[in-house]
Amino acid sequence: MSRWKIGTIVMVCAVLCGAIALSAARPAAQGSASLANDPKLVEDLVYANRILFAQSVLDGFGHVSVRSDKDPSHFLMSRSMAPALVTSSDIMEYDRNGEPVDARGRNSYVERYIHAAIYRLRPDVKAVVHSHSPDIIPYSVTGTKLLPIYHVSAFLRLGAPIFDTHDDFGDTDMLIRDNKLGDGLAKVLGNSGVALIRGHGFVAVADSTPIVVYRAIYTQINARVQIDAGRLGTIKVLTPGEAAKAQAIVEATVGRPWELWKSQVGKIE
Amino acid sequence: MSRWKIGTIVMVCAVLCGAIALSAARPAAQGSASLANDPKLVEDLVYANRILFAQSVLDGFGHVSVRSDKDPSHFLMSRSMAPALVTSSDIMEYDRNGEPVDARGRNSYVERYIHAAIYRLRPDVKAVVHSHSPDIIPYSVTGTKLLPIYHVSAFLRLGAPIFDTHDDFGDTDMLIRDNKLGDGLAKVLGNSGVALIRGHGFVAVADSTPIVVYRAIYTQINARVQIDAGRLGTIKVLTPGEAAKAQAIVEATVGRPWELWKSQVGKIE
Amino acid sequence: MSRWKIGTIVMVCAVLCGAIALSAARPAAQGSASLANDPKLVEDLVYANRILFAQSVLDGFGHVSVRSDKDPSHFLMSRSMAPALVTSSDIMEYDRNGEPVDARGRNSYVERYIHAAIYRLRPDVKAVVHSHSPDIIPYSVTGTKLLPIYHVSAFLRLGAPIFDTHDDFGDTDMLIRDNKLGDGLAKVLGNSGVALIRGHGFVAVADSTPIVVYRAIYTQINARVQIDAGRLGTIKVLTPGEAAKAQAIVEATVGRPWELWKSQVGKIE
Amino acid sequence: MSRWKIGTIVMVCAVLCGAIALSAARPAAQGSASLANDPKLVEDLVYANRILFAQSVLDGFGHVSVRSDKDPSHFLMSRSMAPALVTSSDIMEYDRNGEPVDARGRNSYVERYIHAAIYRLRPDVKAVVHSHSPDIIPYSVTGTKLLPIYHVSAFLRLGAPIFDTHDDFGDTDMLIRDNKLGDGLAKVLGNSGVALIRGHGFVAVADSTPIVVYRAIYTQINARVQIDAGRLGTIKVLTPGEAAKAQAIVEATVGRPWELWKSQVGKIE
Repeated sequence: MSRWKIGTIVMVCAVLCGAIALSAARPAAQGSASLANDPKLVEDLVYANRILFAQSVLDGFGHVSVRSDKDPSHFLMSRSMAPALVTSSDIMEYDRNGEPVDARGRNSYVERYIHAAIYRLRPDVKAVVHSHSPDIIPYSVTGTKLLPIYHVSAFLRLGAPIFDTHDDFGDTDMLIRDNKLGDGLAKVLGNSGVALIRGHGFVAVADSTPIVVYRAIYTQINARVQIDAGRLGTIKVLTPGEAAKAQAIVEATVGRPWELWKSQVGKIE
Repeated sequence: MSRWKIGTIVMVCAVLCGAIALSAARPAAQGSASLANDPKLVEDLVYANRILFAQSVLDGFGHVSVRSDKDPSHFLMSRSMAPALVTSSDIMEYDRNGEPVDARGRNSYVERYIHAAIYRLRPDVKAVVHSHSPDIIPYSVTGTKLLPIYHVSAFLRLGAPIFDTHDDFGDTDMLIRDNKLGDGLAKVLGNSGVALIRGHGFVAVADSTPIVVYRAIYTQINARVQIDAGRLGTIKVLTPGEAAKAQAIVEATVGRPWELWKSQVGKIE
Repeated sequence: MSRWKIGTIVMVCAVLCGAIALSAARPAAQGSASLANDPKLVEDLVYANRILFAQSVLDGFGHVSVRSDKDPSHFLMSRSMAPALVTSSDIMEYDRNGEPVDARGRNSYVERYIHAAIYRLRPDVKAVVHSHSPDIIPYSVTGTKLLPIYHVSAFLRLGAPIFDTHDDFGDTDMLIRDNKLGDGLAKVLGNSGVALIRGHGFVAVADSTPIVVYRAIYTQINARVQIDAGRLGTIKVLTPGEAAKAQAIVEATVGRPWELWKSQVGKIE
Repeated sequence: MSRWKIGTIVMVCAVLCGAIALSAARPAAQGSASLANDPKLVEDLVYANRILFAQSVLDGFGHVSVRSDKDPSHFLMSRSMAPALVTSSDIMEYDRNGEPVDARGRNSYVERYIHAAIYRLRPDVKAVVHSHSPDIIPYSVTGTKLLPIYHVSAFLRLGAPIFDTHDDFGDTDMLIRDNKLGDGLAKVLGNSGVALIRGHGFVAVADSTPIVVYRAIYTQINARVQIDAGRLGTIKVLTPGEAAKAQAIVEATVGRPWELWKSQVGKIE
């Protein structure tokens, strides 16, 4: 065999080895759950996890879910892991009771019942965030009402009621670990966009992933603004009319920050 | 062909290939608006967008504009997008009423009327920033006057009046979405360098891009300093004489932070 | 020699040179202390140093140690240096009195007696963090009790007593520089998970490295939350029953943030 | 000529071209000022500039100087530019009156008289920092005394007097722009390690570059700690005996944070 043929064979082998290595590094073919759902829905859910971590709404704890578009009684959420590290192959499907459809040995978040209960009670809700935001805790433990201080957080006009597990459940471990607790939270949430959980954190709900991420981020910012404003004097909040109109227009422009947040996260899997 | 000629040809080819690659990486030929204006003006406007985001004055919302140098009744501003992502090909030209000269399908900021109205009323103003700064909102919703606490924010001596859309317009969606609202804001701004918009944010104006960026950044810093000082005791603010002199000298040295901020943003398009 | 043989020899030499270079870059064969201990224990200790710096609990000062698994009367800690820069070859072994087993010219932290004393008095403790956190100092100098405000800091139910060197030792240089001072601190710590040192900082203790890092981080976060909550109204803290249950479940899930923190630190030596 | 010889010649040419390019990129031979001074002194001064920016003590404004080791009546400081961008070729030498020895067209900081006056009045001082820290301004405009709250800021025991230009100079532009103002500041500084300038910022002084950088950073941190502590209750500050001992031991260990800060800045020119 000529030298050139030997050289060509060596190079072809090297390329094949590289391709095999790359394939091995790619996540395994995604499970049936995400294949059944709109890939864009799953992709936005992965972005939501990463964005909420990058924007300091979620840390090692907390989670975000979306209602399944294939079966509206189901929802999608990552397996139990830090949101910052979620990829599309970590997304699992849950039934209306919060139980995994096809666990395949993967652990689920203990508090998936937050999401299950809200999806059951609120047919309008398509996405849910649960966060332990240190900026929100002070409101939850002092019974202070979060108010719509400015236009970007006008959705707080829908209320930010506080759910206290102790009221109906006494001494618990504070986690929303079953459907009874989930139902208790969903009932207190009512028609609001946000509910606080005393000594624990908050939930934000919306009819799309970008808007629920937006609401979670701006609930946290509003909390800081409200504390600072309280130090300066009496706060003139948005009137109900202003808040309704402002919420509509601001949420119609959620694409602008959403694209920015995605660009800051960069490439995802 | 001699070996040296072969070598020269190879090197020349390499240089040509590099140049072609660099050209391919350059942004597409810029639209007619920016070609008609001083490229440095457009470049500084792109820097202003990026700097204001990097310095946390703008987030996914907010905008900055400059008065056109070709037609002083016109102004330049990015199309509707997050400031962090603005490039020179996003810059559009607006007429004295805030309408785009050559939209070519690009969306404009709803609140371009903030800029249009100020340019109409204030011939001295060459640049305008609009921000939703969470550090400023508390002042706007409690009617607290921002004061020139220290020399770098001496420009606040010109005042920081608060425009409340509710006074003359009742329940709106809070946005400055037409020239009537813009005129209302510009009238309240008067001859100040800064005006607050209740439950919304603030505007900063100046006769150059570096100075308007500087004023936006230091208005935000002064707001935090003033809240902290208020916690310690009675504040001794700059006297009118001190403030006038300090503003002049500090704004004469704006090149120093401006070069730093540009270097932190890095390469732009 | 044929061209192909020359090429092959050149490639083999390059690979060998690379391997030699990589070997040279590896830390020198680790000292006898870390070879005698479980490499995972040492690796987690290095991670703990880096994580605590990345999470702003430690700065140029402060330290973290683990009880030796080979000899439970000994403990492991870095030589005297900034935690951010610690590698496995910096880890030294100390005896029950806090003296280095095999110094080999390396300097030890002056305050190693904090760790020695706690390991002597608390057989349950396997890891100790000492920090100068600016968020904790205000509590230490005003005698304010840190309380378990929310579920992630439920471990504060064990108490956060304040050790004041001045009480028994008068005017010192504030450092825990010998076993007498160490014993004084350990005695005040009692069975708590955290103790404050007046005008100096705090210590956190736990029965594993991930949990002690977790406790140090969330003690600092709880401190900020408690100050903010105090500004809003009367705080409803976790009940003893809630706190006991919450601490158990949250600390059982410490793997989730621990993996995130390690991934943020990246590769260590 | 054989193909291998041609290849070797091409590679050697490439290496030579690279070396020539690198040499061209190196800063021009440094001016006579820094060549006359200990290169380590100049290097540490460049590090100080970068560190103080990285640690948020300096922004686009502010400066740091060191007393010349060749002529103790002279001092070294960067030309007028943002500290974040300073390199060794920007360092200039000033005489006892604050005038540049060899300007060569380079601009000097207007406020070099802060440094000149302090070096004249305080033979023990070898390094000076001037900062506009927003955390310090509240103390300067309310006449609040900065106190040594904890051991790492024990040097505040030496006092933190407040210089108010208005007292003796009436309405100025707030800058220390001549030796009269500089002397006024130095007189108020007295034997302290820190002095505040009302509505302007502060200065820190020390007998070495690492210690002055340390003092500037921890004065700023202490300011935040003191405000937070004041919110919780009555502050127990360090006793004079504690503070004297703590300052000595902490400043003896300044190498630990200094090495960390340098490593975070990375390579400098």
